[in-house]
Parts: sequence; structure tokens; C-alpha cells
Amino acid sequence: MSVYTTVTEDELTLWLKQYSLGTLTELRGIASGIENTNYFVTTTYGTFVLTLFEKLTAAELPYFLNLMAHLSRHGIPCPSPVAKQDNGFLAELKGKPACIVSCLKGKSLEAPTPAHCAQLGAMLADIHLAGKTFPLAMENPRGPRWWKATAPEVLPRLPEDQAALLQEELRHQSLYRFQDLPRGVIHADLFRDNALFDGDTLSGVIDFYYACNDVWLYDVAIVVNDWCIRAEGRLDTERTQALLRAYHGVRPLTAIERGAWPVMLRAAALRFWLSRLYDFHFPRPGELTHAKDPGHFQSILQRHTACQADLQGLWV
Amino acid sequence: MSVYTTVTEDELTLWLKQYSLGTLTELRGIASGIENTNYFVTTTYGTFVLTLFEKLTAAELPYFLNLMAHLSRHGIPCPSPVAKQDNGFLAELKGKPACIVSCLKGKSLEAPTPAHCAQLGAMLADIHLAGKTFPLAMENPRGPRWWKATAPEVLPRLPEDQAALLQEELRHQSLYRFQDLPRGVIHADLFRDNALFDGDTLSGVIDFYYACNDVWLYDVAIVVNDWCIRAEGRLDTERTQALLRAYHGVRPLTAIERGAWPVMLRAAALRFWLSRLYDFHFPRPGELTHAKDPGHFQSILQRHTACQADLQGLWV
Repeated sequence: MSVYTTVTEDELTLWLKQYSLGTLTELRGIASGIENTNYFVTTTYGTFVLTLFEKLTAAELPYFLNLMAHLSRHGIPCPSPVAKQDNGFLAELKGKPACIVSCLKGKSLEAPTPAHCAQLGAMLADIHLAGKTFPLAMENPRGPRWWKATAPEVLPRLPEDQAALLQEELRHQSLYRFQDLPRGVIHADLFRDNALFDGDTLSGVIDFYYACNDVWLYDVAIVVNDWCIRAEGRLDTERTQALLRAYHGVRPLTAIERGAWPVMLRAAALRFWLSRLYDFHFPRPGELTHAKDPGHFQSILQRHTACQADLQGLWV
Repeated sequence: MSVYTTVTEDELTLWLKQYSLGTLTELRGIASGIENTNYFVTTTYGTFVLTLFEKLTAAELPYFLNLMAHLSRHGIPCPSPVAKQDNGFLAELKGKPACIVSCLKGKSLEAPTPAHCAQLGAMLADIHLAGKTFPLAMENPRGPRWWKATAPEVLPRLPEDQAALLQEELRHQSLYRFQDLPRGVIHADLFRDNALFDGDTLSGVIDFYYACNDVWLYDVAIVVNDWCIRAEGRLDTERTQALLRAYHGVRPLTAIERGAWPVMLRAAALRFWLSRLYDFHFPRPGELTHAKDPGHFQSILQRHTACQADLQGLWV
């Protein structure tokens, strides 16, 4: 359930007067999403998505809203924030930061084929390239600095084997710095549920609220760990190669990225294992239902650690 | 026929590499439009419109391209220019200034109903309001300064009755200054063929290449002279009032605008009568087929002049 804050048609009609969006014709809550309140808003000019931010603050939002506007400007099919008459994207509704964005068609896929993975790989590369001229910057809030701060909180709660795996991975990652890998804007959370397909055509990428500036290859690794994974935690050769080849066709991968690939896949698995461990062991009130299984990324990390040579073999 | 410059799929595939628009899948010339070369360009990310500017220069284009981007940003359904990877909208193709914009669905109507006129009136007001924060400015290239420069060229070619009508109208207009009427960005050419309807829903406004900064009410008069005119050159009461009421509902018209309305309707008729007279008497090579009948706007102007009290009666 993702309508935490209720908005009535009368409230919205009044609120919409600060926009140039025509007249409200329909308002409908959206059931998906776990961190914000979302509504479909239909006006005489079309259908849009209204988001009320339940956690993100007005200070954190300009990076995300301006990034979506920037990528839309470059033709990337992503939600495009609508400006108010004062030209700003950020508004306030019911005491919460709020915005309206364009509505994309399509729905997410659970079992993507190599052809779907190729489309996603190409679009991810286009997002990276289009982001080159984005003027704002944000450090990755779930990067190595966060790993180091969070691991000590989680470690005392872990069984011995998990604690050993986590400590060994943190040690392994600390040997690498990646200062010389190409970097820029990354989505950082482009799981299958954040991509929409209209039939078999990738029609949009959504949910940029984890976007930040980091190593591009790390973003590729996050995507591959979700889109190309088999049930047992191993990467699917065909999907992985389709995704990497398509990405490479738009933004050619370099020799140094080839060398960093296995470590990067492990880093991407570590990041989500650690955040899920934290959410599992330190649940926030009222959010228990959303805690995702940390075991999924633990398996992926173990598999990647055991089969590092295999990972290199999947390179394009 | 509006493909003056031919572009091949191979040329376009190469050219598209400066964008983040996916891979070209179809290229198709567009037969409408009289001043530019237009193609439908379909890529893996959707369908766009490619325009090669045959007359406008690279120096003139930033106002128009940035205006379309600004209005799109505000949710106005208009063509949205796509930025290259270097973040600019303006490109060059086959030695011509060129751009790619989003493709709107819908088609124009020849015989709009009062309900269609109401939708257009509301959107025109939204365009005016959204334009308030647009930072660029351009004087109206077809305003009073241009009338004064152009009339002496045309007058010697006119029969006596037309010359008298033109001179009298120029004299009449020169009595009014309109410095105190609300002004801002205007479309300045929002005839029926520049609005698209998807079924009975206004789905977009196109062709902003006459947009400029001028009196808002003048823009309303241009629209009313086209959308609400009857065959005999008289304004249709129902359509005119529907359009004005809907406009007024979004941007309330003022008392001073009420007073200026008849003069403004005459100014809007004068502008198109004069430009059509000029195009008729001074045809540019190869453009004879596009010269439109000046008589249409002469009739409208004559009717407005004869029935000034009626015009006021149509006010909301």
C-alpha cells in the first residue's frame, strides 16, 4: 500500500492552480511503491503521476528532479517533472514535499529474455552518456563510506559464517579504489521493477531516487546482478552477454573496466546484501512488511566469490 | 511537399550518434509543412520529428527551441526538443540547422465546435501563463514596425478600395499603443492546422516558429479570427464566447483588455492580410503554390471594421 497521505480531488484541484496542466478529471491512488505516496492524476492535458515524499526532504530532491528533467531532455524515456508557473519542480502538498511527473506506459517484467536485457543495456549506456552534462553531483549514499559505517552495526547480529563473509568482502573491496574507472551519473537501483516494457519494447526507466555520481561499471553490475541472475544465484551467460554487448555498443567498455568487472559485481552484491541486512536487523516501525530477504544477495555474493574466473568469462 | 533536403537512413544513423536516442528503426518524410524539411524518425526509444530548417538560421533558432522546451517543462503538450550529448538542442545536418523534437499524436480539425474552441482557449491561456518565466525575449517580427515598413511596398500594387482600407486601418491602429495591456510570450500563429486533436481532445500545439513577445490579447485575437470565423467573415457567437470564457477561466481578462478587444481583432486581421498581400505581390521563387488568398483576411478586416459594436458584444 503506497498511499500514506490522502489527497482529495478538491484539494488537488486547488493545488493544481500553480501549474499549467489544465483541469483535473481523475485522481487515483497507486498501490505500488514503498517509500512515497503516489497518485495517477489525469487532467485535460493527460495523465501524470503525483508523488508526495514521505522520507526524502525538500533539500534532497533537486538532484533527483533535475536529473529526471535532464535525462528527459535528452530523450531518455523516464518520468519528466512538470514545472509550476514559478518554474520550479518542487512543490508542497499536505505538508510534504511533492512533485508531478509525466506518466510512462508499460509494465515491468519478472523474467526478462536476452533481447530485453539487450534493450536495457543499451538504455543504461545512454543514461550514462546523457548524464555527462548534468551539472549537479551527489556522492553515493550507499557507497564504501556507508559500508564501513554500517557493517559494525550489523556484524554483532550475524551468525559466524555470515560475519566472516561480510568482513572478508569488505577487506577484499578495500584493496581496490577504482579512481581510474569512468564515472558519472548512475541510476544505482535499476532492478527489473524499475523498468517498464510496452509489449517487448523497453518503454521507460523509473525511480531515480537512489541516483548519484559513481563508477558507471558499478551501475552495470547492479543491473546484471538482478536482470541476468538465475535462481541458484549464478549469472546467466546469454542474458549477461546480451546486456554487456548492447551496453558496449553504445558506450564502449575499456580494458581497465574488464579487469574491474568481477570486483564490481561483488561490490554491487555487497551493497544490497548489507542494506537488506540492516533493514532486517533494524526494522523501522511500520515497515516490517517491506524488509526484503538478505539471503538472496548473500547467495549472489558467495557465488561471485567462489567463481570469479567465470565472471570474467562472461565479459564481452 | 515538404522534403526539400533528402536524408538517407545511413546518414541519419551516423548523425544520431550525437544523441542518446537509441537505434534508428524507421525514417519517413512528412508531406505537410511549407517552410522546413520534416521527417518522422523512429528509434528504439520512440518516434520523433526531425526538422531541417530551410530558412531560419542557427542564430534565430534558440528562442524557438528553448521556448518549446520551456513549455514542455510546464506540461504544455507541444513538441519537446531533444538535447544532444553536448546538451544543446541545435544541430546541423546536410549543411542546414536541424533539430529533433518529440512527436505528438492527433490531427488538426477543419471545423472546430465550441467545445474544441474552449479547449484551445484554456490551453492558450496556459501557454501565456507558463511563458511568464521564459527568460528569452523576441520582438514580434510581424508587429506594427513591420506593418509600417511593408505597407508602402504593397500599396502601389493594390486597387484603390484595398489601398484605402489598408491605409485607414494603419491610421486606426496607430491611434492605439497598448503599452498597458498584459504581455508576454505569444504563439502568434495558432491557426487550426497548428493544433492537434486526439479524437475530441486537444492533444497538442505545434509550430512555434512565429512565437515572440507581444500582447497576450493579440494572440487571442489571432486565434479567434481563425477558430471562430464563419464563411462570410463574421465571428461565430457560440465559438467565440466558448473560447474567451475558457481562456478567462485560466487567465482572467481585464477591463482594459475588454476595451482593446475590437482593435485587437482588427490588428490580427491586418497582420495576416498584409503578409498575404506581400507574399501574393512579391512571390519568392518556387513558392507560388503556397501563396494564400489575401482576400480572406481582407473580408474579416472589413467585417470587423463595419461591425465593431458586435465584436464588443461577443466579450465574456
